[in-house]
Amino acid sequence: MSLTGPDGSRRFRRSPRRYLPILDWGRRYDRALFGADLLAAVIVTIMLIPQSLAYALLAGLPAETGLYASTLPLLLYTFFGTSRTLAVGPVAVVSLMTAAAVGNLGETGVSPVAAAAILALLSGLMLLAMGLARLGFLASFLSHPVISGFITASGILIAGSQLQNLLGIKAGGQTLPDLATALATHLSGTRLDAVLIGFGTLGFLLWARRGLGPLLKRRGVAPGLAAVLVRAAPVLAIALTTFISWHLGLAERGLAVVGTIPAGLPALSLPGFDAAIWLKLATPALMISIIGYVETVSIAQTLAARRRERIDHDQELVALGASNLGAAMVGGFPVTGGFARSVVNFDSGARTPAAGALTAIGMALATLALTGLLYHLPQATLAATIVIAVLSLVDLSALPRTWTYSRADGLTMAVTVLITLGFGVEKGIATGVILSLATHLYRTSRPHVAVVGQVPGTEHFRNVDRHHVVTAPDVLSIRIDESLYFPNARFLEETLYAQVSSHPEIRDVVLMCPAVNAIDASALEALEAVNDQLLSSGVRLHLSEVKGPVMDRLRRSHLLDNLGGKVFLTHADAMAALAPDLTAKTRAEPRCETARDERGLC
Amino acid sequence: MSLTGPDGSRRFRRSPRRYLPILDWGRRYDRALFGADLLAAVIVTIMLIPQSLAYALLAGLPAETGLYASTLPLLLYTFFGTSRTLAVGPVAVVSLMTAAAVGNLGETGVSPVAAAAILALLSGLMLLAMGLARLGFLASFLSHPVISGFITASGILIAGSQLQNLLGIKAGGQTLPDLATALATHLSGTRLDAVLIGFGTLGFLLWARRGLGPLLKRRGVAPGLAAVLVRAAPVLAIALTTFISWHLGLAERGLAVVGTIPAGLPALSLPGFDAAIWLKLATPALMISIIGYVETVSIAQTLAARRRERIDHDQELVALGASNLGAAMVGGFPVTGGFARSVVNFDSGARTPAAGALTAIGMALATLALTGLLYHLPQATLAATIVIAVLSLVDLSALPRTWTYSRADGLTMAVTVLITLGFGVEKGIATGVILSLATHLYRTSRPHVAVVGQVPGTEHFRNVDRHHVVTAPDVLSIRIDESLYFPNARFLEETLYAQVSSHPEIRDVVLMCPAVNAIDASALEALEAVNDQLLSSGVRLHLSEVKGPVMDRLRRSHLLDNLGGKVFLTHADAMAALAPDLTAKTRAEPRCETARDERGLC
Repeated sequence: MSLTGPDGSRRFRRSPRRYLPILDWGRRYDRALFGADLLAAVIVTIMLIPQSLAYALLAGLPAETGLYASTLPLLLYTFFGTSRTLAVGPVAVVSLMTAAAVGNLGETGVSPVAAAAILALLSGLMLLAMGLARLGFLASFLSHPVISGFITASGILIAGSQLQNLLGIKAGGQTLPDLATALATHLSGTRLDAVLIGFGTLGFLLWARRGLGPLLKRRGVAPGLAAVLVRAAPVLAIALTTFISWHLGLAERGLAVVGTIPAGLPALSLPGFDAAIWLKLATPALMISIIGYVETVSIAQTLAARRRERIDHDQELVALGASNLGAAMVGGFPVTGGFARSVVNFDSGARTPAAGALTAIGMALATLALTGLLYHLPQATLAATIVIAVLSLVDLSALPRTWTYSRADGLTMAVTVLITLGFGVEKGIATGVILSLATHLYRTSRPHVAVVGQVPGTEHFRNVDRHHVVTAPDVLSIRIDESLYFPNARFLEETLYAQVSSHPEIRDVVLMCPAVNAIDASALEALEAVNDQLLSSGVRLHLSEVKGPVMDRLRRSHLLDNLGGKVFLTHADAMAALAPDLTAKTRAEPRCETARDERGLC
Repeated sequence: MSLTGPDGSRRFRRSPRRYLPILDWGRRYDRALFGADLLAAVIVTIMLIPQSLAYALLAGLPAETGLYASTLPLLLYTFFGTSRTLAVGPVAVVSLMTAAAVGNLGETGVSPVAAAAILALLSGLMLLAMGLARLGFLASFLSHPVISGFITASGILIAGSQLQNLLGIKAGGQTLPDLATALATHLSGTRLDAVLIGFGTLGFLLWARRGLGPLLKRRGVAPGLAAVLVRAAPVLAIALTTFISWHLGLAERGLAVVGTIPAGLPALSLPGFDAAIWLKLATPALMISIIGYVETVSIAQTLAARRRERIDHDQELVALGASNLGAAMVGGFPVTGGFARSVVNFDSGARTPAAGALTAIGMALATLALTGLLYHLPQATLAATIVIAVLSLVDLSALPRTWTYSRADGLTMAVTVLITLGFGVEKGIATGVILSLATHLYRTSRPHVAVVGQVPGTEHFRNVDRHHVVTAPDVLSIRIDESLYFPNARFLEETLYAQVSSHPEIRDVVLMCPAVNAIDASALEALEAVNDQLLSSGVRLHLSEVKGPVMDRLRRSHLLDNLGGKVFLTHADAMAALAPDLTAKTRAEPRCETARDERGLC
């Protein structure tokens, strides 16, 4: 990597390889890299088989759609992605959002499978468009409290929805109140076989996470093999419960199983156009695109940083768009970068995106081999694997931690959690984004303001309320610690008028601007108004310590022409010019009435 | 005035007189103040009579509603207002918004008069609620480009709508395309009498503005009297054209005149409750409240500043709310502080809000005396007075001026103008507000970033791209000129990773924070992630020049516990600790390869 400048991605832009990063890393691909990628691909495939089935179930779709969504999308990411180690495929949160979108279609005559493919297609087109238009920065407007709150709430909703499968009942519901009501109504239909298989699998998987690794190590199994075996625990659980289900004929007795899966790989096709359905799915598709993109970029960036690699945010949009178009073509559902799988891919030694292509091949082989065997797989088993996967998403401890740091952010997170739980994922995110913006605007609309005085014997100026400083009676020095822009433009005017009207002796006002990173047209207008009003009452407005870019812009306005006072490079210069007596006095080390502090100040 | 601290309004809050400022200034009221207020009231009344009739016409309401709206609302403002010189009453822009709201009701069976009273009632309640909840700051979110663009577009729309009255046709329309279409369709119905009276009045008023004052002065009229006579020009025009209209019997020939006005003052009453109508009028009422409040506060603050007086923003909301409730009770329409009238009130020497009460009495007397005389007043005359009044609102020159200063603000203003003209006032404002926010977020999402080095022989650090500075190869000093918050949290991560991944020799990163006024939870999370990732690749993250309030907050997080590096008070301290060789070298005045500049630097 040899990028220069903070905006290093420019280098990608100039290259013709920007849109096909495989042309870059593919040229240096060799046998050693292939060996590393293959090992990672095998481990990820073992992990992905149960997950792909489970997330299809979570999305309210037939199990095979999860397998399909784990083939072509992964292959396409290999060609277009810039992350070396991201593992794309079905993930829990996006599957939950898919379930909500597909479930809301009601009586439109569109099958859930067709709707999910349309959703993937729309999401793919949106992501591609955002990538080509370089709109990756839009994802920045999802603040961390919103994402964190939304993910936690999604985890709770997913676990809640899977509780039904663990109990062997099917009642539906997309929000916590709905799920609770449905559960209460149908609780009497609980099936013992589902409970035994579901909670048995849950217990086994929980134990496998903590206890299997150490056990294998104590038995002398090589660490590498032990890691593979731990990852294979869900596959083992599936094999075992499928065998039990088949052996006892539980499907015939009414236990919910995966059932018939079409043989072979899906034919490639694209969903037809239907304006009414597309319009209905557009908002969920946009939400899925943005959430999926944010997840992808967060993971990809974290992993890339560990190896001092870089990713290109806009190209990630293109790659994710291509993957989702691929998901639509194979009749899958929206996909994105999965956190747990990507970490496993990384830890297993994946070196290039080729690991993803190898995983896709593994999943295609699994699809060909498994379709006959999965008929008797109990849905309760898959529900248990989902619950295990989403437990790590729920992080309620972030709530008090964020609240302690910032009330505004804590409130935003809490509201996002509550609205997501109570009213669903889309309303939760929308409310969170609005709250993030509102709290930011509220904060900057009332910035910290200090009247400052000179620290005797120095050229430093500090808040008169906090420090022992000296001031000149007819010069007001005031510092505003915020960029000046429309939410605080009126505050600025009001503050200056308040100061001047309460101190009739003031003849000069110096606005100290070291913290002012920008002055927009509204604040400029306010400054011009203040300048005019002060001038008409015989007071001069000066500026000091204006930053270079801010000054460049002010030179394009009329403020400087009409300014009653001057613009000083430093505040000390301003005071030397406006209150020479004070400067002389403070330089002469004034006598203290009280004891001096450790800095020698009064 | 003896307010202390920038938030001087606190003093009002503690006083029981906060909600009735008249208790404060009323105690010191004397004969001299009364004399001054009375003179101002006479002049404002002369100005308000034609305006109140004209704005009623503009609002699509009978002429008397304008007179009614100029009585009780003014009296109530005297009790509740904090501005000494604000003149409340019907104004052009709010009348236009009233016309749009009342006109959109369609076939609901509610008369325009009843709808206008409901609008005033809702607006009054909203303003009162905002005032009591201290939500005055909400108005700050209307940026100057939005207000300026909206007012200019409103002026154009008002002039466009009055063109119909000047031509003697009635075709309606709330947007520029509608107005143009209506005009084109009905142009053949143009009446010569309306054109002569309308454009004749227009010419006379334009001349009176520029030429009448100097003429009277040349004729030896005292300046005070001359000023009153100039203000009386519209009254003269009304008297003259009413006489012509009556004398020639133009009303009987089909000229649009004011017509029958009920005798006497209106009975006090409040509109009844009708959920469907109230709901329909809620959005326009909110828009009218906010726009009216912004206008009021802008004018009141400007005038108060001229005399070093102060206004209380939240109490202004209460006062404006009371005024609008008053407007509803007398069957008027929404009122607010008018710019031109307030300036006239100020210039005529008004000293206290009592001038408003005296104006209200004058308007009540006018209502009693005039109702019989106004029957023959041509609407074309009133249209001419409106056009004169709104010409000063249209300021298209602000557009290129703002564009020069800031592309983002210029774009916002242009779009606000275009959307207001094309789609009406509400959509125009809404679009403008969204654009203001979006451009602010976009700007702060990509802040200015500088890699800095030491200016030799000093403790100053400057951008390596702009200045001759020295740097240590294994220490990266980087300065971000913006508060760190969610829109730039990812940018921050990306920037630091890009720098570190492109310079493998880096062992220490110092983030210089003099321009960081806040760090929100998203940016904290980003800093924690960067710190962890850098640590795992053997790089320490340090901070320098962190502001007091930001540091206070960071102490409540885990960042400082886990920070790989340290927090330095100054950047010079950081460099002295991390690159002592460099500091020693730069203090030893390195030899220059090029000539030294005026500061003695290489």
